[in-house]
Amino acid sequence: MGNQTIYFKKKPRIVATSTIAGPKECQGIIGRYVETALSDDMYGESTFEKAECKMLSKVIHGAISNAGLQRDDVDMIVSGDLLNQIISASFAARDFSVPFLGVYGACSTMAESLAVAAAFVDGGFCRRVVAATGSHFASAERQYRYPLELGCTRPPQAQWTVTAAGGALVAGEGDGVKITSATLGKVVDFGVTDVNNMGAAMAPAACDTILAHFRGTKEDLEAYDLIVTGDLGALGSRILKDLTWEKGLDISANHVDCGEIIYNVIEDEFQGGSGAGCSAVVLNSYLYSKMMSGAFKRILFVATGALLSTVSSGQGESIPCIAHAVTLER
Amino acid sequence: MGNQTIYFKKKPRIVATSTIAGPKECQGIIGRYVETALSDDMYGESTFEKAECKMLSKVIHGAISNAGLQRDDVDMIVSGDLLNQIISASFAARDFSVPFLGVYGACSTMAESLAVAAAFVDGGFCRRVVAATGSHFASAERQYRYPLELGCTRPPQAQWTVTAAGGALVAGEGDGVKITSATLGKVVDFGVTDVNNMGAAMAPAACDTILAHFRGTKEDLEAYDLIVTGDLGALGSRILKDLTWEKGLDISANHVDCGEIIYNVIEDEFQGGSGAGCSAVVLNSYLYSKMMSGAFKRILFVATGALLSTVSSGQGESIPCIAHAVTLER
Repeated sequence: MGNQTIYFKKKPRIVATSTIAGPKECQGIIGRYVETALSDDMYGESTFEKAECKMLSKVIHGAISNAGLQRDDVDMIVSGDLLNQIISASFAARDFSVPFLGVYGACSTMAESLAVAAAFVDGGFCRRVVAATGSHFASAERQYRYPLELGCTRPPQAQWTVTAAGGALVAGEGDGVKITSATLGKVVDFGVTDVNNMGAAMAPAACDTILAHFRGTKEDLEAYDLIVTGDLGALGSRILKDLTWEKGLDISANHVDCGEIIYNVIEDEFQGGSGAGCSAVVLNSYLYSKMMSGAFKRILFVATGALLSTVSSGQGESIPCIAHAVTLER
Repeated sequence: MGNQTIYFKKKPRIVATSTIAGPKECQGIIGRYVETALSDDMYGESTFEKAECKMLSKVIHGAISNAGLQRDDVDMIVSGDLLNQIISASFAARDFSVPFLGVYGACSTMAESLAVAAAFVDGGFCRRVVAATGSHFASAERQYRYPLELGCTRPPQAQWTVTAAGGALVAGEGDGVKITSATLGKVVDFGVTDVNNMGAAMAPAACDTILAHFRGTKEDLEAYDLIVTGDLGALGSRILKDLTWEKGLDISANHVDCGEIIYNVIEDEFQGGSGAGCSAVVLNSYLYSKMMSGAFKRILFVATGALLSTVSSGQGESIPCIAHAVTLER
C-alpha cells in the first residue's frame, strides 16, 4: 500500500471491556482497575492451560455483559493466544455459539484482534465483535522454556509472562473509545537469536510500525497523549526509544510500555511483563478507564509479538517479530 | 447476527493463484493443474519445517507474480498454517515487506484467510491481499503424532496430511473468481476424542456452517454446482452427508471433499488427505482452473479445521472444530 495504515471512517468503538489478572499482577498498577482479581492463578482448574482458557472465556463473557448485551447480540469473536494451536481461544470460543475468527500474532494479538474487529464493524460486515486475548505465566513457561519444576535461573534480560486476559467489545455505535485507524505491521527480523531477550527482538518491529504510522498518517507525535507499546519490557523499551530517535522521531516524552509498568516491585521479572495478556489487561483496564474519564484523549496502542517457536529456535532460526498499532480516541 | 453470512457487495475476486505440491500429491487429480510439482518433498531444505515454509513463500510470491504484480502492489498477506506459532506463515511473511495478518484455523485456514482478505478488500481497506496456507506431511506427523522414524501403524480412520500449499491474490478489480459471501463458523464440539478420526470430529462443524449458510442466505442447493469441503476424508464426508440429510438438506448430489479426491491411489492414506494444504491446493489449482474455464460457475467452499493440540488431547479434552465457508462465483 505504500501506506500501511487503514482508516475506519465510521469510527467503531470499544463500548465495554473486561479484564482478569493473577495475584502477582494485581499488586501493580492494574490492581485498582482490573475487573476480576484472582487470588489463585489456577482459577479452580486442574491445569495451567485450562486456567488460561477459563480466564479468556471469562473476559469474553464479561465484555459482552458489561456492554449490556447477550451473546446472541455478538456477530463474531476474534481471539488468539500464545499456546500451540491457540487452544485457549478455540476452547473459550466453544463456550459461545458465536462465529469465531482465530488469529495468531503472539503478544501482538490484542492490537491485531482490535484491528480485525474494527475492520469488520467499519466495513459493515458485523455490528458487534469481541476482541480478546490472554496469557498465563505457567503455561507459557512450560511451552516455550522449561518446566517450572526444574527451577531454572532466569537471565537478567528475561521478562515474566503475565497471567491475565483482556477483552473488548467493538461496536458500530454507542459510547466508548473510538478506533480510528490501524497500522498493520510487517514481519521484521533483526537477527536476534536470544530467546530470553524478547525486548531486543521486538523493538525493531515496534519501531518499524510506529515509523510507518507517522509516515503514512503525516500526524504529529504531539497529537498523541501516549505511544503505548505492548511488552517490550524495560530493555526493549530503551532500545525502541534509541531506534526511533535515530530515525528522527523522539518518542521518549510520551512513550510507555505495558510490560515495563505492569509490575510495581521487580523481583524475578527483571525487564518486566510480557505475554499476550500483558498489553491486553493494561489496555482494557487501566488505559481504558483513563480514556473513558478523559485523562488520556488519544493513544497509539502498539502491541508487539515475537513469532518464534521452540522448533524454529531449535533449528537455528532468529526471531521474526511484528507490531500492529491501533489509534484510540476519546 | 442470527445470520452468520456476510456479503461482499463489491465482489472482490481471486485474480490469480499459485500452488505447489509434493510428489505423492501430484500423482492425483491436482497433478495436471498444480503450478509447481516437487520431485522431492524436502524442497532442497534441511528440515521438514523449512521445506513447508519455503512452499508457502513460493505460492505467496507466485500469486503476486501470476497477477502481474510486484510485492509493493500488495497491501496485506493473510496466512496461517498448522505448525506451532504458525512459523511457516510468519517466516514466509518475513520474505515480503508487506503487512502480515497471522490467522489460525487449522485446516480451515484457506477459507478463513479468503474471508478476511475479501472483507478487507470489500471494506475498502486494502486493494490487494494475498490469502495463503499450506501443510507438510512430515512436519505435521512429528508435531501432532509420532516421529516418522518410529514407523507407527496408522489406524484405518486416519488421513494423510497433504504436502502442498496454495495462495490466492484477492483484488478489488480484475478478471477472476468472485468471492460474493462468507459464512464464518462457530466452534462445534461433538465430543469426539479420537485424534486419528478428524473426519468424524470435523463433520459436525461442516454441517453447522453449511446449514447456517443456506438458512441465512435462503438460497437453493441447486444454485451451487458444488459444495466443496476441505479435508473430511471419505468417512467424514459420509458423516457430513448423513448429518445434513437428517437436517433436511441432501447435499449428496453435489458434494465433494478435497481430502477424499486428492489421492488417486489409496495406499497408506486410508480416508484420504488432510491438512491446511489439502483444500488450499485443490481450490487454487483444480477448482480455480475449472471455474475460470466456466466448467463450474458457483461453488460453496467450506474448509474445516480441528482446533486441538497435543496438550489439549493429553489433558483429556475432546476436539473442537470449525468450518468457514466462502461463496465463489464465475
